[in-house]
Amino acid sequence: MSRSTRPPLAAIAAETGVSAPTVSKVLNGRFDVAEATRIRVEAALARHGYAVHRPRAGGLIDLLLSDVHSSWADSIVRSSVEAAAQVGLSVVVSTERARATRGDWLEATLRRGTDGLVAVVDPLHPADRARLTGCGVPVVLLDPLGGPTDDLPSVGVTNWEGGLVATEHLTGLRHRRIGMIGGPREFWSTRARVDGYRAALGHAGLPSDESLIRYGTFNEPAGQEHTHALLNLADPPTAIFCGNDEQAVGALRAARDRGLRVPQQLSLVGFDDIPLARWLSPALTTVRQPLEAMAADAVRLLARQIEGAELDAHRTELSTSLVVRESSGPPA
Amino acid sequence: MSRSTRPPLAAIAAETGVSAPTVSKVLNGRFDVAEATRIRVEAALARHGYAVHRPRAGGLIDLLLSDVHSSWADSIVRSSVEAAAQVGLSVVVSTERARATRGDWLEATLRRGTDGLVAVVDPLHPADRARLTGCGVPVVLLDPLGGPTDDLPSVGVTNWEGGLVATEHLTGLRHRRIGMIGGPREFWSTRARVDGYRAALGHAGLPSDESLIRYGTFNEPAGQEHTHALLNLADPPTAIFCGNDEQAVGALRAARDRGLRVPQQLSLVGFDDIPLARWLSPALTTVRQPLEAMAADAVRLLARQIEGAELDAHRTELSTSLVVRESSGPPA
Repeated sequence: MSRSTRPPLAAIAAETGVSAPTVSKVLNGRFDVAEATRIRVEAALARHGYAVHRPRAGGLIDLLLSDVHSSWADSIVRSSVEAAAQVGLSVVVSTERARATRGDWLEATLRRGTDGLVAVVDPLHPADRARLTGCGVPVVLLDPLGGPTDDLPSVGVTNWEGGLVATEHLTGLRHRRIGMIGGPREFWSTRARVDGYRAALGHAGLPSDESLIRYGTFNEPAGQEHTHALLNLADPPTAIFCGNDEQAVGALRAARDRGLRVPQQLSLVGFDDIPLARWLSPALTTVRQPLEAMAADAVRLLARQIEGAELDAHRTELSTSLVVRESSGPPA
Repeated sequence: MSRSTRPPLAAIAAETGVSAPTVSKVLNGRFDVAEATRIRVEAALARHGYAVHRPRAGGLIDLLLSDVHSSWADSIVRSSVEAAAQVGLSVVVSTERARATRGDWLEATLRRGTDGLVAVVDPLHPADRARLTGCGVPVVLLDPLGGPTDDLPSVGVTNWEGGLVATEHLTGLRHRRIGMIGGPREFWSTRARVDGYRAALGHAGLPSDESLIRYGTFNEPAGQEHTHALLNLADPPTAIFCGNDEQAVGALRAARDRGLRVPQQLSLVGFDDIPLARWLSPALTTVRQPLEAMAADAVRLLARQIEGAELDAHRTELSTSLVVRESSGPPA
């Protein structure tokens, strides 16, 4: 039967007693259709010359999780699992440490079967990318540490704007010496945020002083250590923009170590807006990342490829937003 | 070939040039053996009359996650994924919300295939248990909210002892009015902890005052709300033992709302020891749950069943331990 003589999906919907979107779901091999319905509709589609697309691994996708920052990553896992469930997919979670335990992680995954992979932060080795592509397994990168690439779709956030608005918030409060603790120096997100910080300083007519910029891992000890280093400067900052909320927790701790009150004697701004940020004392001013939307977008991009859509390698950048709470105020 | 005439595994190890533990792994159908080795050893085992056990779902297990307390559950996910990787298993993660999205979660899971299920907090509906048992899918309960059952193995912690040592710590500091915020009233863990609290009060010769005991969900808003309620009593407590660390974060916030210093004017003790507890200001005194060991035990119990071992329905209880930090001290 030629393409032109096939009845429209609406006719098949009428014939099988389901809605047209349900017929479309079955045609696209989605799993969120009751089994009896799926079998009936598949038979009708086949009878009328439609080839039903069928994911090979039963609707199973993989999420490979880097261990860089934990609360952020945990939110990504939950959101991905829930976004995947909405389109009938299940998520196998692997951490970097789990992958390291199994040297043949990728081969074991391919042997078991997977319909697609979301790689979080980890940009994947070129050989692994080639192997996945060769096996026809679609991949989406979520916040890849090296930034967008030209061969795979990716989802990230507007890091430069995030760095800009966080720093403009502090210059707007009339801070003149503003420190920054970035994430690891090699991360794309760090470079973008530091650049946004510099842009805001320039816009406020303030010099960019390299001694005020530190780089460190995305955790509390790094935040504490680098805050002490900044406050030990001969001309210390009155405000610090931290690379993530965990670093800001460490910075709060450093302020307390020195008997400094936040925000009266030191203003702090974080990044991410993890659930805890609003519960810290003082509650943390921070740059919010839309983690649920990021995870949902990554899963959606993957699901579209599983359903057979061709995607250009493209970058989706979701907006960050400043959430002003109690940890930032005018300098003394 | 009869059982008695089969060569020992050591002989097969020598014949195939691998270690005896590797032969044993292959015999038990484990996945943490390189593929070429596995094929060679399987052939030798079959030749000598051994029946190789082979998990049906390719080493895939399911982790069903209740949404009750997030940081605790996130640690369980990471630890389970890593413990599973060590025995060559992969973990499909589902949350309660994801399950609710897919009404036929269990059927979809069985259709896709699973080698076993760890149910976290969720005790599973009896019909679901029967369906899983009928399909030969082993189940382990991790901290089931109703407590241990006689039909399934479970892993938990010593909640009664945890409640006891937390309260004894406070009576030891000479607190005489000690409040408690439990988790939800229907939780086994709540009942055990409240009972430990009462036992410690009795041991110190203090009356058990029902107005000092509150029940609430395991999150910050509940901790804040119930702390305010306790501090509004005519004869308020000088110390509060919270059901988990998130509740203690809310309690810290309530103390700050009222301008009370912790621990000088109010002592606080949490439960769980989530990663953040040591970074709060003041750092939180809390009862540590060995989350990595709990997850590893649950995965190990499941893996043994997958390998064909018969397990009695039994309860493993891992020890809690008190971690004294800055949020507890003698009353003013």
